[in-house]
Amino acid sequence: MINRRMLLYILGRILHIEAALLVLPLGISRIYREPLRISAIWLLTAALCLIIGTICTWHKPKERNLYTRDGLLSVALAWLLLSVFGALPFYLSGQIPAFLDAFFETVSGFTTTGSTILQDVTVLDKSMLFWRSFTHLIGGMGVLVLALAIVPASDSDSVHLMKAEVPGPTFGKLVARMRATARILYSIYLIMTVALIVILYLLGMPLFDAMIHSFGAAGTGGFSSQAESIASFNSPAITYVTAIAMLAFGVNFNLYYLILIGQVRKIFKSEELKAYLLIYATAVLLVFFNLLTFFSDVTTAFQESFFTCASIMTTTGYSSADFAQWPLFSHVVLLLLMFIGGSAGSTAGGLKVSRVVILVKMAIKEVRQSREPRRALALLFDKKAVTERQQARVSSYFLVYVVIFMILLFLIALDCKTYDVAFSAVASTFNNIGPGLSVIGPTGSFARFSNYSKLVLSFAMLLGRLEIYPMLYLFRAFRNRN
Amino acid sequence: MINRRMLLYILGRILHIEAALLVLPLGISRIYREPLRISAIWLLTAALCLIIGTICTWHKPKERNLYTRDGLLSVALAWLLLSVFGALPFYLSGQIPAFLDAFFETVSGFTTTGSTILQDVTVLDKSMLFWRSFTHLIGGMGVLVLALAIVPASDSDSVHLMKAEVPGPTFGKLVARMRATARILYSIYLIMTVALIVILYLLGMPLFDAMIHSFGAAGTGGFSSQAESIASFNSPAITYVTAIAMLAFGVNFNLYYLILIGQVRKIFKSEELKAYLLIYATAVLLVFFNLLTFFSDVTTAFQESFFTCASIMTTTGYSSADFAQWPLFSHVVLLLLMFIGGSAGSTAGGLKVSRVVILVKMAIKEVRQSREPRRALALLFDKKAVTERQQARVSSYFLVYVVIFMILLFLIALDCKTYDVAFSAVASTFNNIGPGLSVIGPTGSFARFSNYSKLVLSFAMLLGRLEIYPMLYLFRAFRNRN
Repeated sequence: MINRRMLLYILGRILHIEAALLVLPLGISRIYREPLRISAIWLLTAALCLIIGTICTWHKPKERNLYTRDGLLSVALAWLLLSVFGALPFYLSGQIPAFLDAFFETVSGFTTTGSTILQDVTVLDKSMLFWRSFTHLIGGMGVLVLALAIVPASDSDSVHLMKAEVPGPTFGKLVARMRATARILYSIYLIMTVALIVILYLLGMPLFDAMIHSFGAAGTGGFSSQAESIASFNSPAITYVTAIAMLAFGVNFNLYYLILIGQVRKIFKSEELKAYLLIYATAVLLVFFNLLTFFSDVTTAFQESFFTCASIMTTTGYSSADFAQWPLFSHVVLLLLMFIGGSAGSTAGGLKVSRVVILVKMAIKEVRQSREPRRALALLFDKKAVTERQQARVSSYFLVYVVIFMILLFLIALDCKTYDVAFSAVASTFNNIGPGLSVIGPTGSFARFSNYSKLVLSFAMLLGRLEIYPMLYLFRAFRNRN
Repeated sequence: MINRRMLLYILGRILHIEAALLVLPLGISRIYREPLRISAIWLLTAALCLIIGTICTWHKPKERNLYTRDGLLSVALAWLLLSVFGALPFYLSGQIPAFLDAFFETVSGFTTTGSTILQDVTVLDKSMLFWRSFTHLIGGMGVLVLALAIVPASDSDSVHLMKAEVPGPTFGKLVARMRATARILYSIYLIMTVALIVILYLLGMPLFDAMIHSFGAAGTGGFSSQAESIASFNSPAITYVTAIAMLAFGVNFNLYYLILIGQVRKIFKSEELKAYLLIYATAVLLVFFNLLTFFSDVTTAFQESFFTCASIMTTTGYSSADFAQWPLFSHVVLLLLMFIGGSAGSTAGGLKVSRVVILVKMAIKEVRQSREPRRALALLFDKKAVTERQQARVSSYFLVYVVIFMILLFLIALDCKTYDVAFSAVASTFNNIGPGLSVIGPTGSFARFSNYSKLVLSFAMLLGRLEIYPMLYLFRAFRNRN
């Protein structure tokens, strides 16, 4: 039933892309004159990807059609494969001695989560730090979208892939010409990233750190080159710029495309953008007033609230302060932001603002309906009626999300002592945020978890990034095989 | 628009019923030779209810039809009124000095929650203890159902009332002859309660305590006459009997009706009953294996697991051990049981098993659908297809439930220091369970909360017991008035 040849061909192409990407850290390792052994590891990994990729793509498949399920399966396998090969340099260099730790770190990178098993990031060489954050940049926009943008192929086989990888419910019509769209989106994405690097550099951040933190903000990942994340630069300007950058990368990229083609007006009509900014602004104010009792001066309270809300809502996870110490009300606000997440079609995780807006509208509609059971009430989004079928899909996604969350919580609770650690570990990885509370907070790490928990949380990150279904299908495919 | 006369008439009748019910604690206060002052308070409160009730019902309304919204509004107002007048004896006697505390305690009683502001229950006179637990018995089956069973009126105006008060989604057809049904259900309910009193008495519990704990188990409330709840009797027989009784009152009462009319076979076909027992049995086993590491002997571990899972799943809240001390995995299992709750049409709270079954089936259907987007998949419950509209209502109820839960959590977090207390206070009151974790655990009380929090939690209990919509409509009606 499954088009195995086509599946293998896609995976081969993904490995070719990874081989090409691995040339960048190889370059970095030479620029910073790292030991030749390190450069050899980059070369070796790249060569491995190239050879295996070439074997996979040797026979071009005649039948190039993909069913939805094949699309889902190939996305899941592609992300697993990317992470396994991407983890090799960390492991081979001995800078992350256990392979499972290296795998966790790489999955955390590609899924733009930013949870780390490193208790001290400074043990990594610069090329390793670069690759670790570069995975955020790739994972943010999606590796299959990248494949689509750069590798020649017919359009027909790509729709399912892109659908499965781009987060959020699709209501837009941008998918008409897939290849052109993928190229435009990736170009916007890279230009914004480069612009951020330049701005951070001009604000006094060393060039290398500027790259690392731009990759982290662009992919809404959150890996840092510093133990204290953004706080280590101790600069309000850098803090505010990073916050605004994270917010910008949490916006649906289709809106930037609209700016490019001159339809700026349409942006202001986007209901998701309005809701996104409204939720963010409300959260900033709530946390700000709550923090006035915690910080001595108003400026700090506002800065920390502005930055942390942006970091959590976009599911980046950079920290300008140890928010694990903040009062309860701020925690509840941040907790809600964690689950809401960024916009659909952005690099952010979580449930996505458009889904949350539709879910809340459905709830309000139901309350009104309970008073007037006979009246049929419509539900509008972006001034268009959302069909019953679309509503059912959004609410069902939410149900699946809740069920998977509970299962993950059960699996982690088996191996964990305190509720806040178990809950925040699952919430943080499943929503692709990064840090949790207590020992896994902004100043902690996931190092103390057992191998079992690290494996479960790695899958949680992949489930979150790929919006559940591709990973579930992977499990089913394996089960049917055995 | 609102049929005010009819509304007033219904409320008047409810007060008449409360006056009649207040005669019982009056009798108790004479039997136990309490001070005449206490008996006078019972008499005074009953007289007050009688007089105000008679004023309200003086003019019989000509127009006796009720729209759905009037039905919702009258249910909400009836429960508020019941609680306000029911709280008077506690306040007037000075045994609960603050009126808001007395109101909280009475709401907790009628909604069968069982959360208490009393740090030591033994300060209450026997008649007060009796009334406090008797509210569980009334609230469990519903006061409007009681009104329907005993007060003569035409059938037409009662359907909405009963619909609004009986918890859970209605798929059954028992509502055809409302009055007869209400009488049968109440008879089954009272016979089961009397049987439980007799059994507990025969097992060595003093008669008064047997009544108190039977009321608590029947209404799945959880108020006790002892500081240590069921644990104070230190009897495995009593523990197991109470556990089985709680489970029995968490079953849909329509099933007992089916036994009465000889259709025993139909019971075994009930999907909700199967799911209810399966979820309970799985939870008992999971908690049992987890507790083996916590208790030294197997018998205790099984007994505590058997009792606590029954108490939490039926949202009763009796404790045979301080489960707040148990390991994390057991907590997560209990947490899930809290939200699932008992069966629809029982006296239990929570989301209800039938809703959870349908929600999980919807989630599974959606996952299958994601692989085969073009196939229309049916969803069966009790071997009948659940329509798209019914599915939408169940999932929307869940959304409303989540939104209200988040709002309550925000309101409580403003006035609370630790997450586990805030979260468990809301989860426990909104699901009508009773105790929470930490300082509000089985050995603690809600006394330390501020008046603001007590008011919010009182509304949480009413929202949970009346399944949200009637209370929301009450808010709206007040807002429109102002």
